[in-house]
Amino acid sequence: MGIVKTQHFTFAHPPNEMVLESGRRLGPITLAYETYGRPDSRKSNAILIFHALSGDAHVAGKHRRGDPKPGWWDNMVGPGKAFDTDRYYVICANVIGGCKGSTGPSSINPKTGKPYGLSFPMVTIRDMVKAQKELIDHLGIHQLLAVVGGSMAGMQALQWAISYPGRVALCIPIATATTQSPQNIALDEVGRRAIMNDPNWNHGNYYGKKHPVNGLAVARMIGHITYLSDETLRIKFGRRLQEKKRLSFSFKPEFQVESYIHYKGETFTKRFDANSYLYISKAIDYFDISNGYGSLETALKTTKAKFLVFSFSSDWLYPPSESEELVGGLRGTNKEVAYYEIPSSYGHDAFLVEGEKIRHLVSYYLAHAREIERLESYQIENQPLS
Amino acid sequence: MGIVKTQHFTFAHPPNEMVLESGRRLGPITLAYETYGRPDSRKSNAILIFHALSGDAHVAGKHRRGDPKPGWWDNMVGPGKAFDTDRYYVICANVIGGCKGSTGPSSINPKTGKPYGLSFPMVTIRDMVKAQKELIDHLGIHQLLAVVGGSMAGMQALQWAISYPGRVALCIPIATATTQSPQNIALDEVGRRAIMNDPNWNHGNYYGKKHPVNGLAVARMIGHITYLSDETLRIKFGRRLQEKKRLSFSFKPEFQVESYIHYKGETFTKRFDANSYLYISKAIDYFDISNGYGSLETALKTTKAKFLVFSFSSDWLYPPSESEELVGGLRGTNKEVAYYEIPSSYGHDAFLVEGEKIRHLVSYYLAHAREIERLESYQIENQPLS
Repeated sequence: MGIVKTQHFTFAHPPNEMVLESGRRLGPITLAYETYGRPDSRKSNAILIFHALSGDAHVAGKHRRGDPKPGWWDNMVGPGKAFDTDRYYVICANVIGGCKGSTGPSSINPKTGKPYGLSFPMVTIRDMVKAQKELIDHLGIHQLLAVVGGSMAGMQALQWAISYPGRVALCIPIATATTQSPQNIALDEVGRRAIMNDPNWNHGNYYGKKHPVNGLAVARMIGHITYLSDETLRIKFGRRLQEKKRLSFSFKPEFQVESYIHYKGETFTKRFDANSYLYISKAIDYFDISNGYGSLETALKTTKAKFLVFSFSSDWLYPPSESEELVGGLRGTNKEVAYYEIPSSYGHDAFLVEGEKIRHLVSYYLAHAREIERLESYQIENQPLS
Repeated sequence: MGIVKTQHFTFAHPPNEMVLESGRRLGPITLAYETYGRPDSRKSNAILIFHALSGDAHVAGKHRRGDPKPGWWDNMVGPGKAFDTDRYYVICANVIGGCKGSTGPSSINPKTGKPYGLSFPMVTIRDMVKAQKELIDHLGIHQLLAVVGGSMAGMQALQWAISYPGRVALCIPIATATTQSPQNIALDEVGRRAIMNDPNWNHGNYYGKKHPVNGLAVARMIGHITYLSDETLRIKFGRRLQEKKRLSFSFKPEFQVESYIHYKGETFTKRFDANSYLYISKAIDYFDISNGYGSLETALKTTKAKFLVFSFSSDWLYPPSESEELVGGLRGTNKEVAYYEIPSSYGHDAFLVEGEKIRHLVSYYLAHAREIERLESYQIENQPLS
């Protein structure tokens, strides 16, 4: 993909703040976003990619030549890849509530000149999508060719298709669900509690001081275990010891799997804000696509998009049964939907690492959606005057 | 079962301390234990029940008439129940490392006059069983009719059958495994980390001061989620709110499932010691029945017991596949084994709450084991002089 640059879009300036699902108002709002490829003349080739809990706008390519790693979905986005930037105009924005350039609890509240902290209003998946719609309007795009994402990002894709029917041709929810399960709410709440128990959390007022890294690391450790699968951990670590010696009989991490989750927890604290973790995990827990519609079917009825749904066999965070519920709802309301349960041992993480297994399907359905869009716009342009 | 009394047995007085698997020594050791029913004349009707992580010696009955709840397996132990105290002599002891009357990190170290804290030596499942064998010897029992337990208690049952072949007729491991899986080690390590992150933990020196209740509650919340199943949580709580109102959009627990795990976490801190949680969870993580034998088959080869193995279909902490590994190993070494995967939606907790589904099987196999034992002892007693 080469070198890419993060851009910023600011809107909802007071007194025209954005009204959130909670009824509270937020503004001004800045969205950090990146684009890849070029819009065609009618701006009809745009694909909006959403990111999951700990992601950001940096989907593909590098910011600087020396960057050790490219964006988080570089295996899927770029010239000739599934989201082919030679053909499509790809956009990704950091969610509100986040800490990667978009307005969130670590941002400066212009009214006080200090970071929001817990005075930041609660945001929902619907609010995240609403903010991104402002960006899409700003970019002059009427209809998105596709909205796509895995995990929390799949919730955003679904929400877009429901909130803005007629403004997306193809919705691609991956490894996600129509609502957050009680088991997942419980797991999230334990993570939040670990953060809030950390004395450095200090009710969210830790900016400029010691951050609650111990609590955030525990939250991430729990989360990380849920992203993997029992099988992956058996293959990757088994019961192997860190030092190839006898057991130390101490409370230091001695199994490799312990060191691994410690490492994952610690590195996360260097790149993520604890308050953002609280806000975004709550947004996920609140998610229920039927909110305000009474039922899943009533919600799904509103959309005009076609659907391409993926789940992964070993995913126990958003198991295939939850995608099947979505697919059942879509079929029940006569929507066009293709569903693939991809065999994988990687658990929930498969949506990031098993790109190879879905890229041909993604390419095919995108090309198909574009053909239909072209055909329809040709018919509209060449309609005989009545 | 009526009113029962906890008894105590102290052994391994210095300089004859018990040598632990780590090579360290522990003594004196006190075991808190309870017995139910009566030994027969040959003391051949004894059943040793083990308890799981947070259990104790109080299996059945009440200590006082006004006790709100009976012992933790009261539905299975008592007159006419699966472990019929009219026929069998049932024994249960609190594990070493525990905090329910047996010697553990909260016990006073007689050498210093202060609680052991982290100076308590690491103990393993094998050590727990070794201590209980002292108790069985002390009670004058040569052969146990059965050893039985679920979860960590199943590990002890297995370890007994391996460590003391010929001293048990029937081994009943329930909802357990021949070794702790890496996923479970990872989950345990997160719980331990939550405890050790609590500033009140203070490297284990908190006795007489504020206890690390916040950390222990988080550890228990994680644990508790793993004891249940997605299905149980959907049925029991779904996404219902604590107050039958709209969302509060705050960080207070608002879903019923959040309040539930908070309640479970908090009540646990009132009845359990944080250091005991650390020690016992490590003992579970260290467990691998093949330790010192090279392979599962070599370990299982040594036992002379028959086996009755139970797993529960929705248990994801010790899934049926792990019981099947044990059963495969037993069959591969020509042991007599009966295996039942019990259909249940209760997850790992099924081993405690689904007694109804296994009690007839348990009764049957116990009666059968006793018949064989009687027959064999008859043959021995009536052997013609050669």
